[in-house]
Amino acid sequence: MNDISPTHPRYHSLLLRDKMAQAYQEGILADTALIAHGRGEAFDYILGEKTNPPANKAIEAATAALLLAKNPVLSVNGNTAVLAGEDMVNLANLIQAKVEINLFYRTPQRVMKVQEVLESAGATEVLGKEDDDYLPLEGLKGPRSRAHPNGVHQADVVLVPLEDGDRAEALVALDKKVITIDLNPLSRTAQKSSITIVDNLVRALPLMMAEVKKLKGCYREDLEKIVNEFDNAENIHNTLDLISQHFKRDERL
Amino acid sequence: MNDISPTHPRYHSLLLRDKMAQAYQEGILADTALIAHGRGEAFDYILGEKTNPPANKAIEAATAALLLAKNPVLSVNGNTAVLAGEDMVNLANLIQAKVEINLFYRTPQRVMKVQEVLESAGATEVLGKEDDDYLPLEGLKGPRSRAHPNGVHQADVVLVPLEDGDRAEALVALDKKVITIDLNPLSRTAQKSSITIVDNLVRALPLMMAEVKKLKGCYREDLEKIVNEFDNAENIHNTLDLISQHFKRDERL
Repeated sequence: MNDISPTHPRYHSLLLRDKMAQAYQEGILADTALIAHGRGEAFDYILGEKTNPPANKAIEAATAALLLAKNPVLSVNGNTAVLAGEDMVNLANLIQAKVEINLFYRTPQRVMKVQEVLESAGATEVLGKEDDDYLPLEGLKGPRSRAHPNGVHQADVVLVPLEDGDRAEALVALDKKVITIDLNPLSRTAQKSSITIVDNLVRALPLMMAEVKKLKGCYREDLEKIVNEFDNAENIHNTLDLISQHFKRDERL
Repeated sequence: MNDISPTHPRYHSLLLRDKMAQAYQEGILADTALIAHGRGEAFDYILGEKTNPPANKAIEAATAALLLAKNPVLSVNGNTAVLAGEDMVNLANLIQAKVEINLFYRTPQRVMKVQEVLESAGATEVLGKEDDDYLPLEGLKGPRSRAHPNGVHQADVVLVPLEDGDRAEALVALDKKVITIDLNPLSRTAQKSSITIVDNLVRALPLMMAEVKKLKGCYREDLEKIVNEFDNAENIHNTLDLISQHFKRDERL
């Protein structure tokens, strides 16, 4: 897999797969992380491996919500760190958000590896480190209930890409605005979040940064209008319609 | 992941995931095998994790084709061995087919592990072992071009579940009847094969064995009629329609 031809129709997807397999070898990821990545690959394939109009709409609303936030926090798990650690840090720096490590299968080694990725990407302050304080999130058990008292616990808006359904629900129950980036529009995380970007993380984050630059000069009420007018359920419906048409059109046959 | 509750709505899927992760730890599988399994999971989810009518139709045609075959060969790769090694052997014994190991990322260790799985499932003769003769399949390069002179090379009908697109194409080009079991109806393997069963291997194989028992007493011309009347492209279209409706109906919302 080391010499993937750039002319391969799925070149970018194969590069990401390679990156994930290598990160697994280096001990950042649990083995179920590879399976999760495969699920994402399938959904991305179904979406045509491109950012679709409903995703663009969600990206605009998500960016406006982050710009309006008092305490925005970007949550980073293993897959997110491997696939888009640098972009997460860049986005955090751009909007002055905190970055917090949240691992589902948390081990000291994995936490340290993710911390390394984030710090070498230029993160000045990383929360959720191995020795950091934490408080459990109500309704969750074990290591995945961990959240930093000054991070996720204080946040009014959280960006939680590739998040587990239980955690997403727990965050929504705490009245936080939950933004997720998830390729499966039917996942519990996608369904429960406040703003769901059904897109590949590696495409969505650069678009969010471009959106920050576009919206940064806007009046507060304009941003509020964007957020208030965004209907997540309807937007997911539009994504599902797209997928449905995609299978119907049979483009690939 | 060790204590999955049988009441979990995706219990069977989670059990298989566990099985795959464990097999990976034991060295049977390449890491991209886990990613491939994840892709399958996503497509199975989309199919409602059940055998749909077009799959049942393909299972009937595939079984008839195997019963009509002079030299049927069942090809087993790593994922197939882990998920359904025993069923592959049982099916082979039922129809007196040969079993051949064909690994995409072939290493002596993996070959031996797959051989172990097949022999402990009761296989009397396994082809494609580490020291076995082999001839390359035309159009393919490297270890994945390997095929046994008395196995796949002589076969008129091959069952190649979870097969790679290039290999499936190479087999079709050799005028073999290629039966595949693949959860992605849009994959090159699914599109190029003679008979495509869009279903989860672990559900499809027991259904094929039941079908063998049903069809075994049939006249040759009845079996031929089943095979000749089966239209693979149309059957895949019907699967895609089903998926399309599934997304439209939004059952899970």
